[in-house]
Amino acid sequence: MLVKLGVNSGFGAKSCIYMLASSAVLRRQQLVIRCLGVGGYSNHNINTNQKPMQGVGFSSGASLEADVENVLRAITPTLDPNRHKGQAGNIAVIGGCREYTGAPYFAAISALKIGADLSHVFCTRDAASVIKSYSPELIVHPILEESYSVRDEDKSFILEKVLGEVDKWMERFDCLVIGPGLGRDPFLLDCVSKIIKHARQSNVPIVIDGDGLFLITNCLDLVSGYHLAVLTPNVNEYKRLVQKVLSCEVNDEDAREQLLSLAKRIGGVTILRKGKADLISDGEIVESVSIYGSPRRCGGQGDILSGSVAVFLSWARQIVTDENLSISSRNPTMLGCIAGSTLMRKAASLAFENKKRSTLTTDIIECLGRSLQDICPVP
Amino acid sequence: MLVKLGVNSGFGAKSCIYMLASSAVLRRQQLVIRCLGVGGYSNHNINTNQKPMQGVGFSSGASLEADVENVLRAITPTLDPNRHKGQAGNIAVIGGCREYTGAPYFAAISALKIGADLSHVFCTRDAASVIKSYSPELIVHPILEESYSVRDEDKSFILEKVLGEVDKWMERFDCLVIGPGLGRDPFLLDCVSKIIKHARQSNVPIVIDGDGLFLITNCLDLVSGYHLAVLTPNVNEYKRLVQKVLSCEVNDEDAREQLLSLAKRIGGVTILRKGKADLISDGEIVESVSIYGSPRRCGGQGDILSGSVAVFLSWARQIVTDENLSISSRNPTMLGCIAGSTLMRKAASLAFENKKRSTLTTDIIECLGRSLQDICPVP
Repeated sequence: MLVKLGVNSGFGAKSCIYMLASSAVLRRQQLVIRCLGVGGYSNHNINTNQKPMQGVGFSSGASLEADVENVLRAITPTLDPNRHKGQAGNIAVIGGCREYTGAPYFAAISALKIGADLSHVFCTRDAASVIKSYSPELIVHPILEESYSVRDEDKSFILEKVLGEVDKWMERFDCLVIGPGLGRDPFLLDCVSKIIKHARQSNVPIVIDGDGLFLITNCLDLVSGYHLAVLTPNVNEYKRLVQKVLSCEVNDEDAREQLLSLAKRIGGVTILRKGKADLISDGEIVESVSIYGSPRRCGGQGDILSGSVAVFLSWARQIVTDENLSISSRNPTMLGCIAGSTLMRKAASLAFENKKRSTLTTDIIECLGRSLQDICPVP
Repeated sequence: MLVKLGVNSGFGAKSCIYMLASSAVLRRQQLVIRCLGVGGYSNHNINTNQKPMQGVGFSSGASLEADVENVLRAITPTLDPNRHKGQAGNIAVIGGCREYTGAPYFAAISALKIGADLSHVFCTRDAASVIKSYSPELIVHPILEESYSVRDEDKSFILEKVLGEVDKWMERFDCLVIGPGLGRDPFLLDCVSKIIKHARQSNVPIVIDGDGLFLITNCLDLVSGYHLAVLTPNVNEYKRLVQKVLSCEVNDEDAREQLLSLAKRIGGVTILRKGKADLISDGEIVESVSIYGSPRRCGGQGDILSGSVAVFLSWARQIVTDENLSISSRNPTMLGCIAGSTLMRKAASLAFENKKRSTLTTDIIECLGRSLQDICPVP
């Protein structure tokens, strides 16, 4: 059962934001359709909402697992031979520096394995050739710079150059994942702050994880009030957020209430608090996903999650106006988090079944396809 | 059934071109044979046409799928232990820059997986080490340069150097694939324009895709009237070509007529318009390939196609004078496109059968061999 802690289950204040967001998506989609010179947009058309929403209505006795799987099924688009490259999702990961190259790769390749058409990584030059070598499927842009490679007098010029490179692509992205393997170099984080501002101006959703959370915890204004932002903190990152925003310690007794307050205080961003059960709130409701995953805690699983949430969130935005979606939230960021968490757990469980203690993040990524097919089968 | 929109099914004007082209191939082959010190050239000898062309004649009731598969079978050479390295195809991909490394790899490795003996990539220095790392099977030349790494006063010197490096190899190539992951750097595109001119002077066929299409759409003279050029535009690239050449919008009602006009207006180049069904025209006839592929639209599939067309086109040139080839075109570029499109679709279908939503371009490449064996079995 999806747990709902209702403060306000209506969508008054937010609905305008969603409408705005939807209009932005719609404008981009219409632009794409005009460019393509075709009239149709599959049966996933956000105007006509023709997609059959089978199995979305929950019987009160349905299991929690069935509920979250229904969300995943409801937002996953029908595969349609009439669609064109990019229409099933174009995701960008901002991360990857001299030290970290695995994390952005995990996030970006997970997006593709779930069904996105295109997956980009924006990283430093040092990281780029390594990330490219992991997989020819990714488009890797070696454009970020760290302080050690930039003279003080060149900083403002280089910052503009970095922004220019990202802005060239911004309108084409359905979601940015900010943080996997980002590191904490001050100049690099300055650039990323600006990228977040530009994404926000363009109404592009952002999923923030890892060092991206370090950045925004120190500068909450970057995301505050942005309803298309998702934060995915682990235990420590959540602790710092709670201390910074609510000026108190994490309270596990009233975990749901505290998460709700936190999301509300950051102006209605969506927070996915990772744990034994994942708790998700947008400041209006709280949902939880607790289907069994795996007891392995190898590094990199959070990156799979951030990439997954990005794809599902993009898909959910395409059907957010669907009146038949009888789950407790129509907020695409909530739906994206529920589906991403569900798939990640299912894949981790499958991988662990096979590899036990030896399970690594790449094993889990290899199980994303089968997990998706189990939950949402393509004939 | 292969659809034929006959304006003129004869080969009057073109036949001299083919004879010239065939002579060039013949000269190169004879050179190879002389170098190797052997007298024979398998039963695929273009002089004697000894290869048995089983199953090429179409009964009027034959299915479309059988027809296009017959084309593929007809042009695929018999494997003969007497043949030597290079005789089954030596392909070069011109592409790969700071941003893109996957696309040229996909095109080049696909050529090998289909049966070419040698596959080269000419790319920038940044891209080369990454592309080399994807596979030890490829020969990768780090010779292209982008503007950011070249001073204005050095440009003409470097351009000559680049051309010299490609020219050293030109006579040995059976086909160039120009465009996968090329990028749009102006200096790099200047170099590629010159490479196209040299390929044309040497009668080497060219398949143009991706950013190569951006280049030639802005400078049609590069390919206009060159009967050994194949363009493989996707929806957007086709739209720009139609606007530029025919000064109108894409007309899906009269798609075949429009494609025919377009190919004719560019002086008889062959155009493979990618879509739900692939439409192919050389300005004289229009063929279509619509056997079912896959509904996944992940990036990179166009690169497989360009590499495939390059190999089949090379093979088709070796048998173009075969009188037994009773299909509606004997133009090797048409035959290459039909076979390439057929194989790509078959491989995509096999990969999707197994990987469903999780299908990536590398999965499709892994199915090229089995697809070819299904259609054209080697005992």
